[in-house]
Amino acid sequence: MDISFDFTYAQSLGADKLLGEAQAARSMLLNRSGAGSDFLGWLELPSQTSDSDLNAIQAAADTLRQAELLVSIGIGGSYLGARAAISALSNPFGSGFPVLFAGHQMDARYHAELLEYLSGRDFAINVISKSGTTTEPGLAFRMLWDLIPPERRRDRVIATTDHKKGALRQLADTEGLRSFIIPDDVGGRFSVLSPVGLLPIAAAGLDIKALLQGAREMQSRLYADDSFQNTAIQYACYRNAAYRQGHKIEIMAAYQQSLFYTAEWWKQLYGESEGKGGKGIFPAAVNLSTDLHSMGQWIQDGERTIFETVLDIKEADGPTIPRLAQDTDQLNYLAGRSMHSVNRTALQATLKAHHSGGVPGLRIELDRLDAEHLGALFYLFEFGCGISAYMLGVNPFDQPGVEAYKKNMFAMLGKPGHS
Amino acid sequence: MDISFDFTYAQSLGADKLLGEAQAARSMLLNRSGAGSDFLGWLELPSQTSDSDLNAIQAAADTLRQAELLVSIGIGGSYLGARAAISALSNPFGSGFPVLFAGHQMDARYHAELLEYLSGRDFAINVISKSGTTTEPGLAFRMLWDLIPPERRRDRVIATTDHKKGALRQLADTEGLRSFIIPDDVGGRFSVLSPVGLLPIAAAGLDIKALLQGAREMQSRLYADDSFQNTAIQYACYRNAAYRQGHKIEIMAAYQQSLFYTAEWWKQLYGESEGKGGKGIFPAAVNLSTDLHSMGQWIQDGERTIFETVLDIKEADGPTIPRLAQDTDQLNYLAGRSMHSVNRTALQATLKAHHSGGVPGLRIELDRLDAEHLGALFYLFEFGCGISAYMLGVNPFDQPGVEAYKKNMFAMLGKPGHS
Repeated sequence: MDISFDFTYAQSLGADKLLGEAQAARSMLLNRSGAGSDFLGWLELPSQTSDSDLNAIQAAADTLRQAELLVSIGIGGSYLGARAAISALSNPFGSGFPVLFAGHQMDARYHAELLEYLSGRDFAINVISKSGTTTEPGLAFRMLWDLIPPERRRDRVIATTDHKKGALRQLADTEGLRSFIIPDDVGGRFSVLSPVGLLPIAAAGLDIKALLQGAREMQSRLYADDSFQNTAIQYACYRNAAYRQGHKIEIMAAYQQSLFYTAEWWKQLYGESEGKGGKGIFPAAVNLSTDLHSMGQWIQDGERTIFETVLDIKEADGPTIPRLAQDTDQLNYLAGRSMHSVNRTALQATLKAHHSGGVPGLRIELDRLDAEHLGALFYLFEFGCGISAYMLGVNPFDQPGVEAYKKNMFAMLGKPGHS
Repeated sequence: MDISFDFTYAQSLGADKLLGEAQAARSMLLNRSGAGSDFLGWLELPSQTSDSDLNAIQAAADTLRQAELLVSIGIGGSYLGARAAISALSNPFGSGFPVLFAGHQMDARYHAELLEYLSGRDFAINVISKSGTTTEPGLAFRMLWDLIPPERRRDRVIATTDHKKGALRQLADTEGLRSFIIPDDVGGRFSVLSPVGLLPIAAAGLDIKALLQGAREMQSRLYADDSFQNTAIQYACYRNAAYRQGHKIEIMAAYQQSLFYTAEWWKQLYGESEGKGGKGIFPAAVNLSTDLHSMGQWIQDGERTIFETVLDIKEADGPTIPRLAQDTDQLNYLAGRSMHSVNRTALQATLKAHHSGGVPGLRIELDRLDAEHLGALFYLFEFGCGISAYMLGVNPFDQPGVEAYKKNMFAMLGKPGHS
């Protein structure tokens, strides 16, 4: 497993000057002396999750796979981590075990179409909610629960929830459902390596042991080193240096379509951890080279308030470009090369072009896109986020602003006790 | 058909003060007196596309539908419009005619998996490219072309390209392929209502006559009125007023998952039209309520440099929330209501909450999400974009920055004639 940064196109930021701040922030994390330190359970999830924990999750996932498909119900951190991993590692055209999602919004037509699709099918549910009363997953679960014959629910429904309190815990106990625990000290956006993420990921047929192994290796590296060689320190220093110099928007750029939801997961992680008190980098994402033909113009030549972080996958399988007898499209000069090598050349060319246009660029290089590297990347981003948010001077682990719309909504909907 | 704006949460912007500027910009469009006026063919696409044009597209689409599926090959404007409409109006779980996409990036694994999926299937291709030499669609077309037996290509492959020049025109003529024309005066991001968008949309089984009818109705309204009641003028005024007051990021918020690609299409339209010369609003998108549990914190409480534009669908079918005997999840207070009404309440509550947090909010209200309204929305955004970009002082119809990465890439790849 190897993941490393390249800062060729971000030298001018002088990020190494922030090393001392980053070291202090890292110490706050590891010593649990910073704001929100009650929520640092994610720090040691890789090292403290045992093989027997993983075996239990895998065994439960295997029972879910006896259905025709799984519907994973959850929102926010109870949705994005699993979706990111499944999307990154599954074949979108393949015949793997299907995992659908529900309760991550309240789109009525989507849910109507989903209900119609599920009707008459033997599907399983993993309902993921700390409280069990969150509106979006709660409504979806109500509707799907009704579709499963009562005598089959114990086989087909697994709850991932609080260990002792809350509505979903109560339901699981009353109905005799199997359940997994959302640890008290792990917030939603840091929960992908807990059962919250692991159960649906395993149900999709992906290798959760490799995922954890990658995270464990990354944890070990980030714990061992507080120099500027520590990749989490590097990332935190570069992005804070960029932000302080007026680069207010960070664009996460992936050249693999399958990384779309990994970027969405990253947006939650950093947006929700840092966007508070009138501060914080605005996290955005692009899929390239697709968006070079849409957002590319803005990135190259719009307001100079951005920097980009590029995910670069070194090795990937894929087609070789064929030679055509008639070179009408003038692409024979690429014949015999792998499509992946051309894609990586586009990446290099774009980093350079954007840099010339005033956009600092960070490149994160992964040897391959597999479960091990993805687990390591998840952990790297989490650890980097803790450091980065402490450097920014905010509590990385709360989300006070998320309540504002809920408060209005409950009052408008007439929820008992809210007005 | 009805589409209207609500500005309750953006009053403080004083946008009506910009009416004179917007009127001047609108005149530049209609008089073809502004920069880039060679590319105003989109303005009259709705009124000038005849029923017989549409019948010809529909007839061609019907022949494509004799295959098992269609692969639409294109990038940028030759991709996003069709994808937006198909995604907005199709059932993602349904058994409609499948339209897949290729050549919108160079993800090697994606294309390898696609090739494997297509192998042995009877698929059709619509290859969409003005030049026929763009790298991404060119490579995909090379690979897929080889999979179609030579004797079947005239039935299964349709080119949408230049009327007389370019590599794809040459290939179509040589091979005797059917073709549709990309008009010389319609740029990619303004091409959804031309054959570029219409052919794959029709192949997906959607009603292109209703789509054009909605656009035609909107064109007629926007041509008839230069007061502040003109919705394109309204939108252009509000977003320019927001931008000038430091709201540098516009977040397009949709509460329907199916509108994801409509927001992507909008990002290209505005990002590529306005992001130049160091200027331009940064266009971003969120899917709500999903992203209230990710980007919501940042939006509510991060840097106060944003405004949001919300797509609100008044009427939608969907499930009614069931009452449970045991109200464990405390959601029985919603029983009997439609999920859509709860979703709209979340929208209202969120607009209000974000406004309280310092985020001006525009609401675009569509009576329904159907082909007619979507056609009208496309045209409204296009017309609004022309006005808005002229108010910003840029040429809405060029994209000089898009060439920068290509120039580097061709040199790195050793393309003949580039170094």
